[in-house]
Amino acid sequence: MQVDQQQTLARIAADLEQAWNAADGEAFARRFTEDADFVNIRGEHFRTRPVIAAGHQAIFDSIYRGSVVRYEPAGVRLLSSSVLVGQIRGKLRAPSGPLAGEHDALATLVLVEEGDGWRIAVFHNTLVAGK
Amino acid sequence: MQVDQQQTLARIAADLEQAWNAADGEAFARRFTEDADFVNIRGEHFRTRPVIAAGHQAIFDSIYRGSVVRYEPAGVRLLSSSVLVGQIRGKLRAPSGPLAGEHDALATLVLVEEGDGWRIAVFHNTLVAGK
Repeated sequence: MQVDQQQTLARIAADLEQAWNAADGEAFARRFTEDADFVNIRGEHFRTRPVIAAGHQAIFDSIYRGSVVRYEPAGVRLLSSSVLVGQIRGKLRAPSGPLAGEHDALATLVLVEEGDGWRIAVFHNTLVAGK
Repeated sequence: MQVDQQQTLARIAADLEQAWNAADGEAFARRFTEDADFVNIRGEHFRTRPVIAAGHQAIFDSIYRGSVVRYEPAGVRLLSSSVLVGQIRGKLRAPSGPLAGEHDALATLVLVEEGDGWRIAVFHNTLVAGK
């Protein structure tokens, strides 16, 4: 079971990474539930998959244009039979904009099992200080 | 049901607020599960209730000495029959230290139902930018 949990989180992290690096907001949001919550590193709260898709497309096309992210799973555990919680570490390289340079972040993801697999119900991200 | 969810989150927020303002790390951690995850505004990840208690006592006795927090629930929903996710807004006034002044934060809480009520399994906090 533990291995499956790790694989589930790793697969989702890989999908998010691929979508970010393709600058594709729709693909980034694809693994989220319809009513997902997303809190970004500025403490801004977005709700629903379409809003998360549009918000990411907007940053991919502006402040994060040309940026590259790498996500690494950093722990996962089961909260109930259909709810997983995990953490992923993100390393972002942005060529320009307010976050130009390399930055680390730590995100908590809450995953829920839906008919077609595990989806992200909650994504909450924080910039790691002192980097 | 929705009212009960809101009351559950509001009660926990009130308990956390009271513990913070009493500078009592043990009391702050009392509503967490034994194996809880806590991510602070610096992106630091702490695990287990005793570690969360000790970590909070350390900041209550140093950088946050004399600080006052106010928490406001900002949404809650059910992820499964025994898992709730909610957000709370925190407004912190710190008289001194690196965060001297007033700061806003947004936290995601994941609550699980245990034998004696709802507990915090996950707390992830982010400072709201531009405040």
